[in-house]
Amino acid sequence: MDTDTLIAAVSIFTAGITTGMGSIGPALGEGRALAQALSAIAQQPDEASTITRTLFVGLAMIESTAIYCFVISMILIFANPFWNHFLQATGK
Amino acid sequence: MDTDTLIAAVSIFTAGITTGMGSIGPALGEGRALAQALSAIAQQPDEASTITRTLFVGLAMIESTAIYCFVISMILIFANPFWNHFLQATGK
Amino acid sequence: MDTDTLIAAVSIFTAGITTGMGSIGPALGEGRALAQALSAIAQQPDEASTITRTLFVGLAMIESTAIYCFVISMILIFANPFWNHFLQATGK
Amino acid sequence: MDTDTLIAAVSIFTAGITTGMGSIGPALGEGRALAQALSAIAQQPDEASTITRTLFVGLAMIESTAIYCFVISMILIFANPFWNHFLQATGK
Amino acid sequence: MDTDTLIAAVSIFTAGITTGMGSIGPALGEGRALAQALSAIAQQPDEASTITRTLFVGLAMIESTAIYCFVISMILIFANPFWNHFLQATGK
Amino acid sequence: MDTDTLIAAVSIFTAGITTGMGSIGPALGEGRALAQALSAIAQQPDEASTITRTLFVGLAMIESTAIYCFVISMILIFANPFWNHFLQATGK
Amino acid sequence: MDTDTLIAAVSIFTAGITTGMGSIGPALGEGRALAQALSAIAQQPDEASTITRTLFVGLAMIESTAIYCFVISMILIFANPFWNHFLQATGK
Amino acid sequence: MDTDTLIAAVSIFTAGITTGMGSIGPALGEGRALAQALSAIAQQPDEASTITRTLFVGLAMIESTAIYCFVISMILIFANPFWNHFLQATGK
Amino acid sequence: MDTDTLIAAVSIFTAGITTGMGSIGPALGEGRALAQALSAIAQQPDEASTITRTLFVGLAMIESTAIYCFVISMILIFANPFWNHFLQATGK
Amino acid sequence: MDTDTLIAAVSIFTAGITTGMGSIGPALGEGRALAQALSAIAQQPDEASTITRTLFVGLAMIESTAIYCFVISMILIFANPFWNHFLQATGK
Amino acid sequence: MDTDTLIAAVSIFTAGITTGMGSIGPALGEGRALAQALSAIAQQPDEASTITRTLFVGLAMIESTAIYCFVISMILIFANPFWNHFLQATGK
Amino acid sequence: MDTDTLIAAVSIFTAGITTGMGSIGPALGEGRALAQALSAIAQQPDEASTITRTLFVGLAMIESTAIYCFVISMILIFANPFWNHFLQATGK
Amino acid sequence: MDTDTLIAAVSIFTAGITTGMGSIGPALGEGRALAQALSAIAQQPDEASTITRTLFVGLAMIESTAIYCFVISMILIFANPFWNHFLQATGK
Amino acid sequence: MDTDTLIAAVSIFTAGITTGMGSIGPALGEGRALAQALSAIAQQPDEASTITRTLFVGLAMIESTAIYCFVISMILIFANPFWNHFLQATGK
Repeated sequence: MDTDTLIAAVSIFTAGITTGMGSIGPALGEGRALAQALSAIAQQPDEASTITRTLFVGLAMIESTAIYCFVISMILIFANPFWNHFLQATGK
Repeated sequence: MDTDTLIAAVSIFTAGITTGMGSIGPALGEGRALAQALSAIAQQPDEASTITRTLFVGLAMIESTAIYCFVISMILIFANPFWNHFLQATGK
Repeated sequence: MDTDTLIAAVSIFTAGITTGMGSIGPALGEGRALAQALSAIAQQPDEASTITRTLFVGLAMIESTAIYCFVISMILIFANPFWNHFLQATGK
Repeated sequence: MDTDTLIAAVSIFTAGITTGMGSIGPALGEGRALAQALSAIAQQPDEASTITRTLFVGLAMIESTAIYCFVISMILIFANPFWNHFLQATGK
Repeated sequence: MDTDTLIAAVSIFTAGITTGMGSIGPALGEGRALAQALSAIAQQPDEASTITRTLFVGLAMIESTAIYCFVISMILIFANPFWNHFLQATGK
Repeated sequence: MDTDTLIAAVSIFTAGITTGMGSIGPALGEGRALAQALSAIAQQPDEASTITRTLFVGLAMIESTAIYCFVISMILIFANPFWNHFLQATGK
Repeated sequence: MDTDTLIAAVSIFTAGITTGMGSIGPALGEGRALAQALSAIAQQPDEASTITRTLFVGLAMIESTAIYCFVISMILIFANPFWNHFLQATGK
Repeated sequence: MDTDTLIAAVSIFTAGITTGMGSIGPALGEGRALAQALSAIAQQPDEASTITRTLFVGLAMIESTAIYCFVISMILIFANPFWNHFLQATGK
Repeated sequence: MDTDTLIAAVSIFTAGITTGMGSIGPALGEGRALAQALSAIAQQPDEASTITRTLFVGLAMIESTAIYCFVISMILIFANPFWNHFLQATGK
Repeated sequence: MDTDTLIAAVSIFTAGITTGMGSIGPALGEGRALAQALSAIAQQPDEASTITRTLFVGLAMIESTAIYCFVISMILIFANPFWNHFLQATGK
Repeated sequence: MDTDTLIAAVSIFTAGITTGMGSIGPALGEGRALAQALSAIAQQPDEASTITRTLFVGLAMIESTAIYCFVISMILIFANPFWNHFLQATGK
Repeated sequence: MDTDTLIAAVSIFTAGITTGMGSIGPALGEGRALAQALSAIAQQPDEASTITRTLFVGLAMIESTAIYCFVISMILIFANPFWNHFLQATGK
Repeated sequence: MDTDTLIAAVSIFTAGITTGMGSIGPALGEGRALAQALSAIAQQPDEASTITRTLFVGLAMIESTAIYCFVISMILIFANPFWNHFLQATGK
Repeated sequence: MDTDTLIAAVSIFTAGITTGMGSIGPALGEGRALAQALSAIAQQPDEASTITRTLFVGLAMIESTAIYCFVISMILIFANPFWNHFLQATGK
């Protein structure tokens, strides 16, 4: 197994696992917040606009942690500096 | 075991695990939000349209984390840059 | 162990595990949403049609994450691009 | 260990684990929904027909994730394309 | 270790684990539904017949996931196509 | 390690683990149902006969999943077709 | 390591683990049922005889899953058919 | 490593693990039942004798699962039939 | 690694793990019972003597499972029959 | 496998896992805080500005733990001092 | 690796793990009991002396399981019979 | 694999894992405290300044445990005494 | 790897893990007790002195289990009898 | 791999893991106590000074378990007696 192969295999595996782990926490957190938002709207319909505005700002913040994971995965697949280094080093 | 085989095996395994992990969090989160939405509709039927609108926007946001995982899996199976590199390198 | 065998073994194993993992989250999430729907109908029978309509749209969304997993498994078994590549490469 | 043996062993193991995993989530989810249905009937007997109808449609949807797993297992045991390939390839 | 031995060992192990896993989810799910049914009967004795009928139809549905596992185990022990193949192949 | 030894060792280990796993779910499920039954009798003593009858039918259904496991274990110890095959094959 | 030693070692290990696993579920389930029984007696002292009778029948049913495990362990230690086979085969 | 050593090592390890596992479930189950008993006495002091009598019969039943484990451990340490067999076989 | 060393190492490790596992369940169970006892005394001070008497009898029963583990550990360290056998066998 | 390859592989793997782990806790914690914020707004609409201000300061503090992880990952990928050392040492 | 080294390494590792495991259960159990004691004092200040007396007797009982672990660790470090045996045997 | 490489690899891996683990507890703890703070403000708006002041002092204390982890990671990456030792020892 | 190195490596690893495990239980237990103490003070301010006195005595008792772990770690690092033995034995 | 390298690698890994584990328990415990403190202040504003004083003394006690871990990590990195021993022994 030469150098390129190992780097590629590790990059593929890590890219998948990172995004996979990054979908668990945010999805559960967003589900909880969304559930409470719907309950709050039902309880206080007059405040629906304030609630939904706060909800979506908050969801964006939670989503950011999922996006960190997705960004890392994309970097590992399409802009991996280690991979680029070995490609240049071996002149391929 | 030559280079191509390892890359292919890792890609297949990672594609499956990533989508598998990516179905757990979103499904639980959406289930929780949906359950609360139905409870909210029963409690405040007059707000059903606001509730369902907020629900579906929120579900789309949760679903996005599952879709990140699915996208990574699809890239690994059908547009894998590492795989393409080795195919070109070996001239196959 | 030659190349074809490893790819086939990994594909079989991954196909099973992916669908297996993909049944846990959606089933629990749908169970929770369905339970709350029935409770909501009992509490507010007049809204039964709105509740069941929202329920089934939501269930379809949750089910989609299970279907992503099933699709990946089916691709790995019946339309596996890596497998097809090696079959062509070895001329079998 | 020749090729056929490995494919057969992996297929047997995966078939069992997939169905085993596929029984946990759906059973728990259906148990929860069924429990709530009975509670709802006791609370609102007049809506028993609506509740049981919604219940069984929902249970069928949850059951579908268990069936995906069972289908994968059956394919792996009785219609395994990789197994068939190797049988033909070796002319057995 | 020859071919037959490995297939037999994997079949035995998988048969046991599959049924073992298949007893956890259904038993817990049925226990929950049954508990709620008894509570519902105590709360609304007049609906006892509707409740028990719905209960037993639901339990049968939950039980089905345990039966899928049991069926897979029985197939692996008594009607294992891979085992039969190797028996014929080796002429034993 | 010859063939007979491996088959015997795997059968012994699997028989134990299967029954061990098969005692966890049913015991917890039955405990929950029984607890609720006693609570229901205390709440509605006049329905004690209906409750206990439903309870014992339900317990039998839950117990069935434990019995599946016990049956598999007994088959593996006393009527193991793979073991019998090897005994005949080796003429012992 | 000869044949007898492996069979003996696996039997000893499996016997212990099986009974160990078999004590967790039943003990928790019985504890829950017993707790509820005491609560029910305090709530409805006049039904104490019905409650304790139902309790002990139910506990016996839960205990049965622990006894399945104990029986398997005893069979593996004192009436192990595989062990007896090897003892006869080797003429010891 | 000769035969005696392996059997002794496995027996020691299994004896410890079995009793260790056997202390978790019963202790938690008894703790729960005892807690509820004290609560029931505080709630209905006149029934204290019925409650404590039921409690101790129930605790003995739960304790039995811990004793099964302890018995297995004692058998493995002091009356291990496999160990005795090898001692006689080697004439030590 | 000679025989004595392995037996000693396994005995040391098992003695520690057994007591370690044996402290988790009883400590949690006793904590729960004690907590409820204090709550019961606060609720019904006149029954304090009955409650504390029942509490300490119950705690002793829970403690017994921890003591089983401690006894096994002490036997393995100070009165280990396997260790004594090997010491005599090797004449040390 | 030479030095560079190992450092690159470990850096890639660690970068992914760190960000993946760093998305779970913050997402759940933010989801919980956001849910309570929406509930608080519905309960006390007049305090919405104080609540949302406190919420966003707090979310930023929680987010900081996710950002620590992201920073570590970025350092490992783009400014890894160990990697730079080996690149200089080997003169590449 | 000679005999002394292995015994010393196992003793060190086991001593640490045993005390580590032995701190989890008792600390949680004592925390629960203490929390309830404070709640009981606030609810029934007149019984503070009875409550604290019962509390400290109970805490001592829970602490005993932690002390069993600590004693085992101390024996393994400072009065280890196996270690002493090997020291004498090798005449060091 | 020479000395420098191993130290670098372990440092990279540990730095990532430490910060990753250090984000879980603090994020959950801060989320819980923040959620309760918002609830308390909604319940007692007049005490908002006391509540937020106590909140931020407390959050800083919780954050400190995350910062310990981050500090350890930074030391391992940028001021690792073991790494510096080996760099000097090998004269690089 | 000579004797000293192994003993040192095991001592370092065990010292860290022991204190790490020893921080989880006590911290959670103390957090629970402290939370309840604050709630009790708010509920019954007149008993604040009794409550805080009982709290700190109880916290000290819980802390003792963490201190057992810390003591073991300190002994392993600074007063390790096994380490001292080998230092003397090798005359270093 | 020589002696120094192993000791350094184990010290680095242990230092990270210890602080990582030591951040989970204290952060959760402090979060729980802080949450309850804020709730208590909202409920009884007049006792705010007593509550916050008790809170910070208690938090310091919980923090102490995190600090034990941090101290162990710092000792392992900057004042490791085993490392110092080997440095002197090898004269480096």
